[in-house]
Amino acid sequence: MYGTILHAAGDVRFEHRPDPAIEQPTDAIVRLVATCVCGSDLWPYRGLSPVTRPRPIGHEYVGIVEQVGDQVVGITPGQFVIGPFFACDNTCPNCRAGFQSACDDVRWYDGCQSELLRVPLADGTLVATPELPADDLIPSLLTLSDVMGTGWHAAVMAGVQPGMTVAVVGDGAVGLCGVLASAQLGASRVIAMSRHEPRQRLATRFGATDIVAERDAAGVARVRELTDGVGADVVLECVGTGEAMLQALSSVRAGGMVGYVGVPHGVEFPVRSMFDRNVGVRGGVAPVRQYLPDLMTDVLARAIEPGLVFDLELPLAQVAEAYAAMDSRRAIKVLLRP
Amino acid sequence: MYGTILHAAGDVRFEHRPDPAIEQPTDAIVRLVATCVCGSDLWPYRGLSPVTRPRPIGHEYVGIVEQVGDQVVGITPGQFVIGPFFACDNTCPNCRAGFQSACDDVRWYDGCQSELLRVPLADGTLVATPELPADDLIPSLLTLSDVMGTGWHAAVMAGVQPGMTVAVVGDGAVGLCGVLASAQLGASRVIAMSRHEPRQRLATRFGATDIVAERDAAGVARVRELTDGVGADVVLECVGTGEAMLQALSSVRAGGMVGYVGVPHGVEFPVRSMFDRNVGVRGGVAPVRQYLPDLMTDVLARAIEPGLVFDLELPLAQVAEAYAAMDSRRAIKVLLRP
Repeated sequence: MYGTILHAAGDVRFEHRPDPAIEQPTDAIVRLVATCVCGSDLWPYRGLSPVTRPRPIGHEYVGIVEQVGDQVVGITPGQFVIGPFFACDNTCPNCRAGFQSACDDVRWYDGCQSELLRVPLADGTLVATPELPADDLIPSLLTLSDVMGTGWHAAVMAGVQPGMTVAVVGDGAVGLCGVLASAQLGASRVIAMSRHEPRQRLATRFGATDIVAERDAAGVARVRELTDGVGADVVLECVGTGEAMLQALSSVRAGGMVGYVGVPHGVEFPVRSMFDRNVGVRGGVAPVRQYLPDLMTDVLARAIEPGLVFDLELPLAQVAEAYAAMDSRRAIKVLLRP
Repeated sequence: MYGTILHAAGDVRFEHRPDPAIEQPTDAIVRLVATCVCGSDLWPYRGLSPVTRPRPIGHEYVGIVEQVGDQVVGITPGQFVIGPFFACDNTCPNCRAGFQSACDDVRWYDGCQSELLRVPLADGTLVATPELPADDLIPSLLTLSDVMGTGWHAAVMAGVQPGMTVAVVGDGAVGLCGVLASAQLGASRVIAMSRHEPRQRLATRFGATDIVAERDAAGVARVRELTDGVGADVVLECVGTGEAMLQALSSVRAGGMVGYVGVPHGVEFPVRSMFDRNVGVRGGVAPVRQYLPDLMTDVLARAIEPGLVFDLELPLAQVAEAYAAMDSRRAIKVLLRP
């Protein structure tokens, strides 16, 4: 089969690789129907996380089960499945508490931007659709592998409740999904912080009631202006930089919460000012497996369409172009079909 | 009148001071019935916060209203009142949201370890009992000025819910009140971390189901042992040191919350490990004014007895001995009567 290898910063290649095989009796082999590039893939692509040797890359996928190991009982060949961006047993205490990303037996995939994938712990990891989904639902189902579940997690961690005012920092796919999640969870006001017109449009389509194009101090001032001077009830931080976190912490009201899901790069928490204002933070690696069944139901019912975050579709063989398009922000998110 | 002046680290004196007078039409003058020494008073007493010049000290009190300014409408002379450890208007957006410690017009007192006190913003700040309380209720009512409301806040910020397992770091008056709060909020298991037998006893009386005497890594291991290896659902951090915060963050389960109310001294949040485990933090200067009316009702109904944290009572004139007793941990908390 062919799969994607990140050789070095900026150097992505679609290469011949050995076909994956069942290694453990709990494995499944999935033939991918669609995969994509994640904002977090851009960290090593941009050289902001070290790339010490060539490695397979990608962690989002939907596909058709080809084969299962002897101990797999809930998943069968032929099913259309969605996998969270990690494998988990879904039975340990952390999984049962809804934090599958902290599964006692969590596993990370060996590169999902490929034609075939070995999925460990298939029973705990994979969620199958009741029947083969319509083709136009594939993009939205694919987002449940990561970005939609991650945006949803930001909103859950922030504690979004009906009637609240939410501000969202970050207009990437996760931030946009955070807007959608906030609206779905009943926020009466959703302030999307974005300077890019196509992303502003999508934020509005996802339920944003206000757009703030300003950044830094001006952005904070604008959020305060929109909220009677007090700040948003909660803020979703969907970037992962120190600047974005400060923007979030400064835009939230006294007593408010920041839900954060951007992988932290240079983030520090200013303890004393958080203490003085009773501003809390909660977030982390999103347990998207928790949210997957409910969000899948919503997608299949066409109640939500998170797949709109994909504004470019390419053949998987053109994966290098997909990275380049996202790196230059020509595309919000690129869907790849093997 | 006489009041307490902190001259320098370790140097507390009870001295003649001018009687306070109404300065603004929203002021009240209160003749104190009881006051006390707070754990946070020990920071400057121990030289851990700088004392640059002699200053009045103390922020907890109950008393009888002597006089009110022209614009005070809800409080009248003769009433028995409890004040939170700060003055607030209780009408601004932050107050209405329940975060009175972030009141737009918050004021800090000029030393409550005294005979008379000027209370600014009397209508917003003071809470009067329906009638003069029985003398044996005075200690419990006094705790509502700070430590009981602060322990309660830790539990609220951590999100204590019925059935949860809570661990409490810190066996000072606030930590003990955090134990009481957790039990009142329905925690099914409350693990008090304490090495001191009298404090362990009081924790048990307040509702602790388990005592952990170990500290640091051994303390964390013991909490995990008690919780099937996963950690407590939430942890209350009631000290304010870096060690206590690390103890709290390490004792909580993946996806759990740390509610913190100890004034941070040398606390840093380890962003990456918090992110990896989805552990959140929320807390700050406790808006005890929010909790005061309900907790007062509970005290007057004798449903809770937080006043048990006072294990020494002295005449206010012996305030220096009160500091010494708390500094050496001979006393948990000292009540002072003018």
